[in-house]
Amino acid sequence: MTNSMKAQAAGRLARLREAAAQAGIRTFLVRDTASIEWLTAFDNVFDDEQAHALLVTPHDAVLHTDSRYAGAARKVAAGEGVIAIDDARMGHGAWVADVFAARHANAAGGVAPADIVLGIEDSMTLAGFRALERALAEAPAAPQLRETTDFVRALRAVKEPAEVARMKAAQAITDAAFSYIITFMKPGMTEREVQVELEDWMLRHGASGLAFSSIVATGANGASPHAIPGETKLEAGQCVVMDFGARAHGYCSDMTRTVFIGQPDAKMRSAYDTMRQANERVEAALRPGVTGADMHQLAEDVLAAGGFAGKMGHGLGHGVGIDIHEEPVLSPRNTALLAPGNVVTVEPGIYLEGELGMRLEDFGVVTEEGFDVFTQSTHEMVIL
Amino acid sequence: MTNSMKAQAAGRLARLREAAAQAGIRTFLVRDTASIEWLTAFDNVFDDEQAHALLVTPHDAVLHTDSRYAGAARKVAAGEGVIAIDDARMGHGAWVADVFAARHANAAGGVAPADIVLGIEDSMTLAGFRALERALAEAPAAPQLRETTDFVRALRAVKEPAEVARMKAAQAITDAAFSYIITFMKPGMTEREVQVELEDWMLRHGASGLAFSSIVATGANGASPHAIPGETKLEAGQCVVMDFGARAHGYCSDMTRTVFIGQPDAKMRSAYDTMRQANERVEAALRPGVTGADMHQLAEDVLAAGGFAGKMGHGLGHGVGIDIHEEPVLSPRNTALLAPGNVVTVEPGIYLEGELGMRLEDFGVVTEEGFDVFTQSTHEMVIL
Repeated sequence: MTNSMKAQAAGRLARLREAAAQAGIRTFLVRDTASIEWLTAFDNVFDDEQAHALLVTPHDAVLHTDSRYAGAARKVAAGEGVIAIDDARMGHGAWVADVFAARHANAAGGVAPADIVLGIEDSMTLAGFRALERALAEAPAAPQLRETTDFVRALRAVKEPAEVARMKAAQAITDAAFSYIITFMKPGMTEREVQVELEDWMLRHGASGLAFSSIVATGANGASPHAIPGETKLEAGQCVVMDFGARAHGYCSDMTRTVFIGQPDAKMRSAYDTMRQANERVEAALRPGVTGADMHQLAEDVLAAGGFAGKMGHGLGHGVGIDIHEEPVLSPRNTALLAPGNVVTVEPGIYLEGELGMRLEDFGVVTEEGFDVFTQSTHEMVIL
Repeated sequence: MTNSMKAQAAGRLARLREAAAQAGIRTFLVRDTASIEWLTAFDNVFDDEQAHALLVTPHDAVLHTDSRYAGAARKVAAGEGVIAIDDARMGHGAWVADVFAARHANAAGGVAPADIVLGIEDSMTLAGFRALERALAEAPAAPQLRETTDFVRALRAVKEPAEVARMKAAQAITDAAFSYIITFMKPGMTEREVQVELEDWMLRHGASGLAFSSIVATGANGASPHAIPGETKLEAGQCVVMDFGARAHGYCSDMTRTVFIGQPDAKMRSAYDTMRQANERVEAALRPGVTGADMHQLAEDVLAAGGFAGKMGHGLGHGVGIDIHEEPVLSPRNTALLAPGNVVTVEPGIYLEGELGMRLEDFGVVTEEGFDVFTQSTHEMVIL
């Protein structure tokens, strides 16, 4: 583990301990793998499996993992004294109970076991929760459980400069991929062919993986915001929505561009201009102190003024980080104030059922002064 | 929806209703997306998001999804009368409470609400469970909740011939990719370069996606069974573990081969021969009536007889289907009898810390007579 990783892990654990203490939580059990990856600052140890548990106490942090990951984890943790690794062959619930029993079997340490509040994440499975309940019920001494929602995710929502740098690097690959793919796309190709070429290009040009499975949707398929690319061919007169992102250094990027095969008609131009205005008005308005709900409403207002009221149908944006969907969201349900360090997408879209879909998505970071957009690709209409 | 999809969905729903009735469960709430995909037999509607809920009653089945997926779901469900689609904008918990209230506000239908048992999956999140509890607590009439473990997954563990055909098709792509990649690999290439080429080849030759992120691990990296491919270069005298699989028609394939860069030494040959024997002895022994624990033990015994006792460290195999990890597992914890239709991997491995790792993995289906292996790639040593 390098010094900077050690400092990152120590700093993030300190943020969690402080937030936990304020909430009356003494020890926190983290099961979400992305949150564990963030708290440990371990690179290249974890994959998608929710196979790990991290117990953060006021004094230390212990990762419970299995033999498949323990070697890699020990290698990055070696000698830094911030994270201990335990690969005892047992369920996470029983492991927590054992660790707790070993440390707090009596109140000699000054804290009675039953006075200790153990914070857990409600993103864990019900099965994992029941196993933990059972193990603690059988233990000689057990803490109180406190269920929390998005507790670590709320901390992750405020990015450090080093995280911003990783996302900018990921987006640079994504922007370059867009520049390439618009030279590759031709009428007669299928959505799927374009997707495969696009993803392969990113993986051969610095991406460590994909942030998510890319969307390439032409014509009426674009009206479905989560369309799965298929055998539909690109045809003149249509627009093509492409939503994609490279993953690099553990962090995601996310962009959408809509390009035109041949000259678009007046309605398409009007929709595109309106959507672009919505995007740019929001990006100009984003700053600390506005809410996600404000920004969503601003986009809806611009779309409505352009004649496309109610044609978006999804939230305006979402946080991005280690996960492709993080906090905070730009949607009616988020009335909290945005803060410097929040990284969000801005992705207004217009979907006309049976006809077409388009979306224009950038992402960037809320700064003290405004919004720093990571995405460098043009907002001008791209006509192929 | 084609007739065969309609028949598949109807048949699978009937299996769930029968199992539920036997367990005293009247209505079942499915949240696991892969289980929903299986029960509906919908192709190309769902992605990885756990954004859906399927309520299966004795008389009908209703999918609750959101606007991003509703169009595609309606399209495949159209006119077949097996699955209804509801995209009401509300949480799944509140939706279940509403549907229940609408149908069972009184006992006029012959069943008192409180006598109805609603089965749920304990793979759902604790947050989803709490939301369901709250919604039902506020409802005028509520069913009893019954938490179940692997209820639909147990049904999915017995594959239909149509599912076996899809997995054989997926494996054919994976076998072809292996034939290709051994002509591409050269000393001096990085693990990562081989991975990118391998995955791109599958995606350009019929795979709709990857079953999982591929492993390419050379030298000592191979000793970590979940190694992430990196910048380590292939060198003469080493072996390279490749664990990969195409996804096709919604189903996964999964294989591992270990190849040698230049002539292997005597210890490598001995390890490979032992591992191969473990694989082949298990494949010859697999049939209805043996247990996963038996098969795991058989492999351990063969490895120990060859001088590699305790060097596997993971379970021998796992089920495969829509998910890459399904039931049943071949490991000490599975003492249930295997049945015709179970599709499992057989993947003995030998891991020598700091030195090398190797694994030989096929997958296939348990038949009335034995085990039908899908994997066609050779077990002979491949020396490049």
